[in-house]
Amino acid sequence: MKTIAYAARDAHSDLAPFEFDYRALRANDVAFEVLYCGVCHSDLHMARNDWGGTIYPVVPGHEIVGRVIETGPDVTRHKVGDIVAVGCMVDSCQHCDQCDHGEEQYCRNGRTDSYNSPDRIDGELTRGGYAKYLVSREEFVLKMPEGLDVAKAAPLLCAGITTYSPLRTWGVKQGSRVGVVGLGGLGHMAVKIAAAMGAHVTMISRTPDKEQDAAELGAHAFLLSSDADAMAKAADGFDLIIDTVPVDHDINPYMPLLDIDGTLVLVGQIGPVGQPTTLPLVFGRRRIAGSLIGGIKETQDMLDFCAQHDVLPDVEMIRMDQINEAFDRLDRSDVRYRFVIDMASLEAPAA
Amino acid sequence: MKTIAYAARDAHSDLAPFEFDYRALRANDVAFEVLYCGVCHSDLHMARNDWGGTIYPVVPGHEIVGRVIETGPDVTRHKVGDIVAVGCMVDSCQHCDQCDHGEEQYCRNGRTDSYNSPDRIDGELTRGGYAKYLVSREEFVLKMPEGLDVAKAAPLLCAGITTYSPLRTWGVKQGSRVGVVGLGGLGHMAVKIAAAMGAHVTMISRTPDKEQDAAELGAHAFLLSSDADAMAKAADGFDLIIDTVPVDHDINPYMPLLDIDGTLVLVGQIGPVGQPTTLPLVFGRRRIAGSLIGGIKETQDMLDFCAQHDVLPDVEMIRMDQINEAFDRLDRSDVRYRFVIDMASLEAPAA
Repeated sequence: MKTIAYAARDAHSDLAPFEFDYRALRANDVAFEVLYCGVCHSDLHMARNDWGGTIYPVVPGHEIVGRVIETGPDVTRHKVGDIVAVGCMVDSCQHCDQCDHGEEQYCRNGRTDSYNSPDRIDGELTRGGYAKYLVSREEFVLKMPEGLDVAKAAPLLCAGITTYSPLRTWGVKQGSRVGVVGLGGLGHMAVKIAAAMGAHVTMISRTPDKEQDAAELGAHAFLLSSDADAMAKAADGFDLIIDTVPVDHDINPYMPLLDIDGTLVLVGQIGPVGQPTTLPLVFGRRRIAGSLIGGIKETQDMLDFCAQHDVLPDVEMIRMDQINEAFDRLDRSDVRYRFVIDMASLEAPAA
Repeated sequence: MKTIAYAARDAHSDLAPFEFDYRALRANDVAFEVLYCGVCHSDLHMARNDWGGTIYPVVPGHEIVGRVIETGPDVTRHKVGDIVAVGCMVDSCQHCDQCDHGEEQYCRNGRTDSYNSPDRIDGELTRGGYAKYLVSREEFVLKMPEGLDVAKAAPLLCAGITTYSPLRTWGVKQGSRVGVVGLGGLGHMAVKIAAAMGAHVTMISRTPDKEQDAAELGAHAFLLSSDADAMAKAADGFDLIIDTVPVDHDINPYMPLLDIDGTLVLVGQIGPVGQPTTLPLVFGRRRIAGSLIGGIKETQDMLDFCAQHDVLPDVEMIRMDQINEAFDRLDRSDVRYRFVIDMASLEAPAA
């Protein structure tokens, strides 16, 4: 199936139109037309080879919503016309302990990412959602629940599940005290989802002008991290802090904010992070952890949860040909809070 | 009650004999004669004011075994002649949530340490076990179970509980895969206790000559951390790693050894520790934590467990007047694995 897309040809060029052929559908494959695709910071990192390992041309995009156009003969979960979604994974071994208990993101034999990963059968590189079509085995295709605005939902597939999963893993419930550090694509979802779970949510920021934004997203409180008195008063006050800051930073100011046995979960930065002191760890059995997206079942649960609780990201819709400008703005954190590409623009004449 | 003891008068002098008066017994006080006292690395740190906050003269010692000589009128748990023990705490507020669920070490209102802490009633500084007598409220006085060698048991009160508590907190049981980093007072207890819990215990060390020692202590395997191949092969192989290294060090080599959702617990170093990378955290939901001794009930459970499973530290018995030499050797890690002071030597003529 011939597919048009946008791809990066190397680490330094703009994304530009690119055409490739999708495999003929396998028995358990679903093909869908991409309707919307979110723009994740990792798309930018991958396009620019910031983490190494990018194989060009690369078609980014792993926050993908579409409409099924064809199904393989064995497909039972989806049918033509269904509104579906694909996130960061399109395959895993399906037989290890992690896959068995629904944590395909930690597959022992390596998950297959939605782009820049070799397909497990034919070895072809996977291609992401900055494309007209996408083909995936049905187990990794999620059902979009009724009532979720398809034009806005795409960022749930990465930003949503990346924050939903640790909130669930660490047992957030009615009355839990949750802090969120960093107010970008991930942070704003963490605020919304935690609030929808019934938590008391505090935005923790060094920027006073985030207070109003955080309140509008549903945060119940704001803690200015540069205010030493306020930070001291807030000590021991959080069960969980979701740290979404995507660069190296000092986590020591946040650790004493955690209550005994509380956890700081890093979901933004991939790489070195400050130099912690063990004092808040030892003297309060506090923990530092990380978390990667979520499993397929959990991602479906997250979509259903968001539909039920009317949780949607704040998005700025762009055309496909605005992607390079969007990357530049993303680099400057100039977006509230997630770009979504209207994929109908892929074939439309430039504005 | 007049008491002779050994005290540090300042940060630079040797410990030397010192006499002080204990309070008259309160209604819930137990007075006991100290029989044996373990020498913890923190005694050395406190004597030398390495952490700041030492108030001189300081009488160290928080691994204390003794025989009850007198009880206040309301004491019900202990009677004259009982063999008892005191660890790192002698009081806490007894009414906060942490005290309520038996975690007095994390008392909201601050635990009272066994030495160098103001008593909650009269404000007098507490004095540790390098003394002829000790007085403590009965709730913090533990029962020495039958069958535990009193001459060797003292180090259980700090080194024992410091490793037992995280092993319990993180659910170690038959078949758990436990790694231990650092083979000193804490590390050798971690090996023995984890093995007694039925765990498969691996000593992780950069020193090949620790292999034999670790095996003799009950470790089932040895992992040489300088052997890159062995470390790579051991990836994802541990549910829990107890890191007992008491100085700043790089924890990054150990993190990938943990299985998904595994935890590295720091119990040795109090202060800065390396600069972690978030990769093993994010890509395996691994955790870094700390842990401080254990609560009173848990400490009693630990003593009972050690009696039942015949777990005792390896000790080198010294006289009280050998304490300064012992401190010097401790500073060079020249002890297998814990000095214990035979307190009968306090009044005996020097050898």
